[in-house]
Amino acid sequence: MVGRTEREPHHSERSPRRSPRRSPRRPLHRSEAVRDLLRATGMTTVFGNPGSTELPFLGHWPDDLRYVLALQEASAVGMADGFARVSGRAAFVNLHAAAGVGHAMGNLFTAFRNQAPLVVTAGQQSRSLLMHQPFLGADDAAQLPKPYVKWSVEPPRGTDVPAAIAQAHRIAMQRPRGPCFVSIPADDWAAECEPPPHRALAADTTPDPAALGRLADALAGAEHPVIVSGPEVEEEGAGPDLVALGERLRAPVWTSPFNPRLGFPEDHPLFAGHLAAAPEAVAAALARHDLILVVGAPVFTFHVPGACAILDGGAAIWHLTTDGGAAARAPAGESILGALRVALPALRTRLPEEPHRRPPAPRAREAPPAAAEPLPASFVLSRLAAVMPQGGVLVEEAPSHRPAMHAHLPVTGWGGF
Amino acid sequence: MVGRTEREPHHSERSPRRSPRRSPRRPLHRSEAVRDLLRATGMTTVFGNPGSTELPFLGHWPDDLRYVLALQEASAVGMADGFARVSGRAAFVNLHAAAGVGHAMGNLFTAFRNQAPLVVTAGQQSRSLLMHQPFLGADDAAQLPKPYVKWSVEPPRGTDVPAAIAQAHRIAMQRPRGPCFVSIPADDWAAECEPPPHRALAADTTPDPAALGRLADALAGAEHPVIVSGPEVEEEGAGPDLVALGERLRAPVWTSPFNPRLGFPEDHPLFAGHLAAAPEAVAAALARHDLILVVGAPVFTFHVPGACAILDGGAAIWHLTTDGGAAARAPAGESILGALRVALPALRTRLPEEPHRRPPAPRAREAPPAAAEPLPASFVLSRLAAVMPQGGVLVEEAPSHRPAMHAHLPVTGWGGF
Amino acid sequence: MVGRTEREPHHSERSPRRSPRRSPRRPLHRSEAVRDLLRATGMTTVFGNPGSTELPFLGHWPDDLRYVLALQEASAVGMADGFARVSGRAAFVNLHAAAGVGHAMGNLFTAFRNQAPLVVTAGQQSRSLLMHQPFLGADDAAQLPKPYVKWSVEPPRGTDVPAAIAQAHRIAMQRPRGPCFVSIPADDWAAECEPPPHRALAADTTPDPAALGRLADALAGAEHPVIVSGPEVEEEGAGPDLVALGERLRAPVWTSPFNPRLGFPEDHPLFAGHLAAAPEAVAAALARHDLILVVGAPVFTFHVPGACAILDGGAAIWHLTTDGGAAARAPAGESILGALRVALPALRTRLPEEPHRRPPAPRAREAPPAAAEPLPASFVLSRLAAVMPQGGVLVEEAPSHRPAMHAHLPVTGWGGF
Amino acid sequence: MVGRTEREPHHSERSPRRSPRRSPRRPLHRSEAVRDLLRATGMTTVFGNPGSTELPFLGHWPDDLRYVLALQEASAVGMADGFARVSGRAAFVNLHAAAGVGHAMGNLFTAFRNQAPLVVTAGQQSRSLLMHQPFLGADDAAQLPKPYVKWSVEPPRGTDVPAAIAQAHRIAMQRPRGPCFVSIPADDWAAECEPPPHRALAADTTPDPAALGRLADALAGAEHPVIVSGPEVEEEGAGPDLVALGERLRAPVWTSPFNPRLGFPEDHPLFAGHLAAAPEAVAAALARHDLILVVGAPVFTFHVPGACAILDGGAAIWHLTTDGGAAARAPAGESILGALRVALPALRTRLPEEPHRRPPAPRAREAPPAAAEPLPASFVLSRLAAVMPQGGVLVEEAPSHRPAMHAHLPVTGWGGF
Repeated sequence: MVGRTEREPHHSERSPRRSPRRSPRRPLHRSEAVRDLLRATGMTTVFGNPGSTELPFLGHWPDDLRYVLALQEASAVGMADGFARVSGRAAFVNLHAAAGVGHAMGNLFTAFRNQAPLVVTAGQQSRSLLMHQPFLGADDAAQLPKPYVKWSVEPPRGTDVPAAIAQAHRIAMQRPRGPCFVSIPADDWAAECEPPPHRALAADTTPDPAALGRLADALAGAEHPVIVSGPEVEEEGAGPDLVALGERLRAPVWTSPFNPRLGFPEDHPLFAGHLAAAPEAVAAALARHDLILVVGAPVFTFHVPGACAILDGGAAIWHLTTDGGAAARAPAGESILGALRVALPALRTRLPEEPHRRPPAPRAREAPPAAAEPLPASFVLSRLAAVMPQGGVLVEEAPSHRPAMHAHLPVTGWGGF
Repeated sequence: MVGRTEREPHHSERSPRRSPRRSPRRPLHRSEAVRDLLRATGMTTVFGNPGSTELPFLGHWPDDLRYVLALQEASAVGMADGFARVSGRAAFVNLHAAAGVGHAMGNLFTAFRNQAPLVVTAGQQSRSLLMHQPFLGADDAAQLPKPYVKWSVEPPRGTDVPAAIAQAHRIAMQRPRGPCFVSIPADDWAAECEPPPHRALAADTTPDPAALGRLADALAGAEHPVIVSGPEVEEEGAGPDLVALGERLRAPVWTSPFNPRLGFPEDHPLFAGHLAAAPEAVAAALARHDLILVVGAPVFTFHVPGACAILDGGAAIWHLTTDGGAAARAPAGESILGALRVALPALRTRLPEEPHRRPPAPRAREAPPAAAEPLPASFVLSRLAAVMPQGGVLVEEAPSHRPAMHAHLPVTGWGGF
Repeated sequence: MVGRTEREPHHSERSPRRSPRRSPRRPLHRSEAVRDLLRATGMTTVFGNPGSTELPFLGHWPDDLRYVLALQEASAVGMADGFARVSGRAAFVNLHAAAGVGHAMGNLFTAFRNQAPLVVTAGQQSRSLLMHQPFLGADDAAQLPKPYVKWSVEPPRGTDVPAAIAQAHRIAMQRPRGPCFVSIPADDWAAECEPPPHRALAADTTPDPAALGRLADALAGAEHPVIVSGPEVEEEGAGPDLVALGERLRAPVWTSPFNPRLGFPEDHPLFAGHLAAAPEAVAAALARHDLILVVGAPVFTFHVPGACAILDGGAAIWHLTTDGGAAARAPAGESILGALRVALPALRTRLPEEPHRRPPAPRAREAPPAAAEPLPASFVLSRLAAVMPQGGVLVEEAPSHRPAMHAHLPVTGWGGF
Repeated sequence: MVGRTEREPHHSERSPRRSPRRSPRRPLHRSEAVRDLLRATGMTTVFGNPGSTELPFLGHWPDDLRYVLALQEASAVGMADGFARVSGRAAFVNLHAAAGVGHAMGNLFTAFRNQAPLVVTAGQQSRSLLMHQPFLGADDAAQLPKPYVKWSVEPPRGTDVPAAIAQAHRIAMQRPRGPCFVSIPADDWAAECEPPPHRALAADTTPDPAALGRLADALAGAEHPVIVSGPEVEEEGAGPDLVALGERLRAPVWTSPFNPRLGFPEDHPLFAGHLAAAPEAVAAALARHDLILVVGAPVFTFHVPGACAILDGGAAIWHLTTDGGAAARAPAGESILGALRVALPALRTRLPEEPHRRPPAPRAREAPPAAAEPLPASFVLSRLAAVMPQGGVLVEEAPSHRPAMHAHLPVTGWGGF
């Protein structure tokens, strides 16, 4: 409680805006990947009270990260709470398993009420012991800090630890801010991983004007931008705004995988098709573009595992969404949170009226199928499309004919799916 | 899946904007209060599959509410999911206790992924039976639908049922939308309650321009507006914007109860003091105002129970906040969600430059205390304030001297608390 | 850590065996009811660190209960852990809401691992405030101590607080012992309640020989004992043992409400019928008996609320069950935990071979129904019973004909339902 | 609902009593390990409604396991409920991820109330996708079926899947029985694992007389039996019973790792020392014994990972415990559940009075340490032991001197730690 004069706004860095690193990523020891992340996110002061299960992370501690050793876990969280709120940046906390997290719960409650952005990590016994209730081991470790965390996780695999910490940071920093928790089994440190790319996140719930400006610059400078449109577009009534943006950019527009709403009018010349929910297929479809703008969808919803080359490669990925969870989970790119029906027009007004690029070639469409015995589904659907009255309602119960439906029965109006 | 033409935007009503009813509220039977709420929120179609525990709500069903009876609970939720997303309004679902909610969980998962705004209610055995595991009774009823709901509650008292449903509706409609759950013990219906006021909520995460316009009109027309400033103001770096708004309005500014940040520079002529966390005290402090604008704080944080006359009385209450939970929990008034550092300047530019009202009289301050044996705390604090260097740091550990500190050691700079 | 000599076994009181009070219960102030419970269960030393929300319980503290004030919540739980394990009795802990429970969580983890029987209570803000997130209020209060408690509850009504504490004590004392948690809204203290009867519970998972002896004495001395048989009997293969016990006692045997297994062969002369799941109906059916022995069922499963006179009246209630939860929830009587197929024969061998009482009069059975147009269900069922081959399988999907089925289609063999 | 005659007791197999396989275990494909487990536990009928995430388990389905395909998940659980209760054995259920489990929740509630022993498994998306919310992926998968399961887990590693299913089976079969849930990421099937040994579990909460008989035979026939004594012994007042058993067996007695109570009088000739919480150390200490009887402790509590040779090797492991969780988690051996103060005397009376084996050589003890400057802790402690009055209380706060304390300050009386 002080009587000091106005200082320069401490929030200027609250949305880290460093541009994502594009260099090819090489495997790193996991503790090294986490330390890089601490540096990239500005969490260079660590508050903690560690024990045996945290030692693998603490060996060879580097000089440029400060470790503030608290005498008890409650103090570690209390100091981190104040530090985070005064600095405007998330603070990193390093606790001991189970009992250590327990001691901290009182001050974690307070930090949650204070909306202090904390990334709280705690050791956990080795995965190889967890089925047999080891000494100091936590049962269902992600449960203990609830309900006084915004997010709590024990990662599904050791290799996910750095990505989990990165995600915790992004969730902690979204407004209203608050603590997140990551439980880390001791043997998760004992290997390398592919470090997660450093992402940027404009975390105000209103689209950040400066971030929109940078996105407009990037779009204006891109050679071959592409748009992926998701369910939030129709959900927020922003469909016409998206069409207008696409037309100004002369960019093709794909529908996001498994979009439960209309992504784009399927008879529009810019409509490029439906992305499949497979990493390789998405990478192939978007491979030739240098800027990928995902609007109102996760980056990306997959149904099968695999490698998605565009996520660590050359293309810049930008992400407009109202869904904070989707922004936090995106594995790459810069997310700008906030209402699409505000962000899309604001973005368009920042773009030059006459785009220098030529519109994409129209999508090849399947020829209308011919009738046959028995009737092919594609023929039925294409006839249906021809004779449907405006506003007719069709109930779909035929997932195995989804591709034929996409091909021959286009959905053309907002609210039409 | 249809080929119909563009229809008028179905989202025009998504933020109900009917002005709050100001008429004195009279006790209503609880089921009647809930039905009024269904009408006020547009949830006039109910999807359900009820059983014995839901009967008290269903008796004397009115003609203007449609009850769509599903053959199984999964169908009820599936229909409601589609209805909600096509209509752009929340749908109301009425399920049977425990097993009924269980049957619905598969489609509730889908509705959650679809971000469909649902208010799912389920009966529960009578409170008088719950300690003894009755037939059909749910154990920890609010737990079952997790984690596929945005909010889940069994109200603390029967009289809270209508307010809980109202809160569930407000949370379901905030973006990203999704299902909420309310468990209702059968004997909770058997009495009257004070119906919750019908509130409005602009639920986009970006401040709704139309709602800001209406707030500006209300502020321009108010005789004696007052501002209550909470922790989000400093948290978002919007302090100077709030000062500018206060000065344009010539309105006194209070700090919200238990504000953990600076609410307003305490040496500013418009600073009116610190609200206590007691309903009667808040009502007394704000009683003479016809418009109360709460910025960046809950409406209100109380520490003791009591009656807060201003919440159902004559004053219009407006609420700007980034915290969706606070917007949903506010018992009265119209909430506009979104970043304060965007909303406050946008609001100010909509206000006339020359306010017609005179500034409030300066707040009476306590005289500097005199020294004595032993030293009074107030004297120590006032001397401290006089000699503190700019930027000095003071750690406070004396809650019992908080009033003296407020009186004699003002915090004057943003980032200063 | 001491080197003292063997002292007398401290476990002799571990199963409180005071006979249940039978005197009519009169309403008591709730804090008085809880203090009586502390005395009856031997929890006369209280460890705590209270705050404002606990004050209603602490006013007018009596001389015969010792309150050990800890400087922090962790110490309160730590002391209680040691005290409970050394004394062999549960210890009572009294914490402050939310943050207080949080501070205690580290030592609560340890107490859980130590299997220390603790009844941990914490204040909570008043119910009238809970919908609006008051200062110090816990969100979903019963969640915080999980997963390191055996049971956690915020009672559904204020009047249930003493019963909830009694239930927590019974669960804490069952083996393996451990902490239980009860969250108590501050306004729950402000009224009277009907105090829960003081119950006895032999909490070893093996039927306690001494308790079985006392039950045998009570049965031998009873004038009109009655047996209620539940699903555990068939589940554990103890059906023949129950028949033998019933025959030795010459006592009528009812099936427990909603028994999902065969309770007793329905053609046996001692079979008395199926109890309905309604408090008044159960009381009426068992009213003339002076000893009610419930075997393998809850006491009792009800479907509707109401008053069950036998629960606070003259009849002694004894309860044999393998289900610790059912033993803890029983509102009255003495429960003996452990395998029925061990307890039932052990009990029979303790009973005199020649019972002094006469067998009950055979149950009146409905006359076989006559055929009619249309066929009455009862006629169909009685014909079905007559012509069913041995071992035939019948799938029932007609709950509305359950009474007719009970009347005309008796289930006679174990494994037959 | 049938009228068939008494058939032979269907519960005869309820405690599988096949002796544990001792043959060296070789790695198996995980789905093969699970199928072996289904055969060993009698869960040879599988009820399910699978989808894509379950396919890796279903390929090359063997002829001796029956898969009953249900049309919807609710039916799968309903059939399994009836099958399990009629057969007296656990039934295995195979559901689809997230939405599939959701559809089943209504009948899972019923199965939980029916105390039907079910092992419910569900697919989950691949671990490599889980950080990014894939299509069909469950969030916090183990949460969904709560609170209507006895146990719910997503294993910490893919290699733990067979052991998790084995543990779920053991918990489901303990009384009161009920459903358990295991979530299995699709990529967990794609490797081999060391199959868990097939264990036996006498799951009545009262020590099974037949199992005690077999244990007595094994003890009488063993050459070098050893006892490990845990905290439940003192906790249940069974210390003298354990001393009497040890003396009749002439077997050395170790204290279990991290025992928070007295394990055995430390001045007794049979006392062998304190086991360390390390797998290799435990294996070394017990290596020369052919029968290991663990009484009132987990098998075993470890603090560090490693290989414990005795768990898959030649020694027979028997386990007496009151703690069902410890019985289910034990990685090897046969567990007999129930009160130690009943089981220990019952076991002793089944043993021959004159054991054929000679008592173990007395443990070498450290010589009393000499005084020095500064005073060694061991000297202080040995003097303390010499001068402590009977019944003196010593509070320990020196974990780093625990070995010296064990060496020089023996705890000799029950209730003394």
